[in-house]
Amino acid sequence: MAVKILTIKEDILGANEEKARRNRGRLDKHATLTVNVMSSPGAGKTSLILQTINRLKPKTRIAVIEGDVASSLDADKVHQQGVPVIQINTAGGCHLDANMTEKALNNLPLEEIDLLLIENVGNLICPVEFALGEHKKAMLLSVPEGDDKPYKYPLMFTEADVVLVNKIDLLPHLDFNTTAFNQAVTGLNPAVKIFQVSCKTSEGLEAWFLWLEDETKQMKNRQG
Amino acid sequence: MAVKILTIKEDILGANEEKARRNRGRLDKHATLTVNVMSSPGAGKTSLILQTINRLKPKTRIAVIEGDVASSLDADKVHQQGVPVIQINTAGGCHLDANMTEKALNNLPLEEIDLLLIENVGNLICPVEFALGEHKKAMLLSVPEGDDKPYKYPLMFTEADVVLVNKIDLLPHLDFNTTAFNQAVTGLNPAVKIFQVSCKTSEGLEAWFLWLEDETKQMKNRQG
Repeated sequence: MAVKILTIKEDILGANEEKARRNRGRLDKHATLTVNVMSSPGAGKTSLILQTINRLKPKTRIAVIEGDVASSLDADKVHQQGVPVIQINTAGGCHLDANMTEKALNNLPLEEIDLLLIENVGNLICPVEFALGEHKKAMLLSVPEGDDKPYKYPLMFTEADVVLVNKIDLLPHLDFNTTAFNQAVTGLNPAVKIFQVSCKTSEGLEAWFLWLEDETKQMKNRQG
Repeated sequence: MAVKILTIKEDILGANEEKARRNRGRLDKHATLTVNVMSSPGAGKTSLILQTINRLKPKTRIAVIEGDVASSLDADKVHQQGVPVIQINTAGGCHLDANMTEKALNNLPLEEIDLLLIENVGNLICPVEFALGEHKKAMLLSVPEGDDKPYKYPLMFTEADVVLVNKIDLLPHLDFNTTAFNQAVTGLNPAVKIFQVSCKTSEGLEAWFLWLEDETKQMKNRQG
């Protein structure tokens, strides 16, 4: 049975890669920097996105795709910020894929969007296996999850362009070894950027905002 | 593509159910109460299992199956407690299945085990879709994940026999509405048992231990 599953998965991934390339072509054409935001459930993806909209909206035209197994709780929160948002419900599926993303892109005015944030389904495993067409992958690890996660979920940490270590306001109440965590992550992924943040207190978020602004600017320059 | 995935999934699930029934038959024969322990990454499954071994070992013969994408960190911790443990690495797979469980059962002395705890892969979505042959499903939700999770991951909360709300020692530092959470869970699953616990301070764990002891005893009585 193991072999059978593997074969099916390769077919799905191959078809997904092809569609992701097409999505990326569309996003490139409009110079819409697209970031795939991934984490475990409850690590703070929606809070990060809301903080990012709040801080960057004055200069940057933002849109959001929200992925969830069920509900539109997150999309409702984003909608209140007055930016375009599409909710994808996967009906049990544990990740977004390029096909779902394409359907969302069809419903967004890409020519008017500088930065597209895609909040993936809460899951540290499968989302990173399915390209959506994004330019960058950002993942959150919240400190209550523990500093051993890079060893247990290595692919996500290996593929991320940015790791945001969130909920650092809780560090005094937890046994989380930041040095050991950072070493484990850079061991897997030497080029990764690691930002220590609290979406609750806003501590450390400025580095993330600057990185996003810089990447958005580079995207415009490449296309311009 | 959506239809194609669904079809594949049904085939996998059908074959899995059949194998899970056979696993359950073996466990019934030996009167080995088997509990499938599920949660997001870092919610406290391993801590719960270590606490349970520590408390019940004097009267109950326990064994553990550890499921992880990679590493044997958790199995090493369990091994130090002196109980039989099998580590399954799924090599990227986001859940255990009945086939993997069968292979682990082949390596355990079931006739000498009263209670088998299976720590599933850290994931709030897929593990609950794949029966292993277990008698009971226990899930943990750690309070830093947020009280909205029953709306976003409804199947896990609907299928669980027990929901352990873990890390309640952090409640003073978080906005977690216990009443709203409990209402959401019982709305999905009126028969569920909810235990408020801290695996760090041991608060509230006694109710979980009593439930496990009672279920283990009932299992023996049924088979005896």
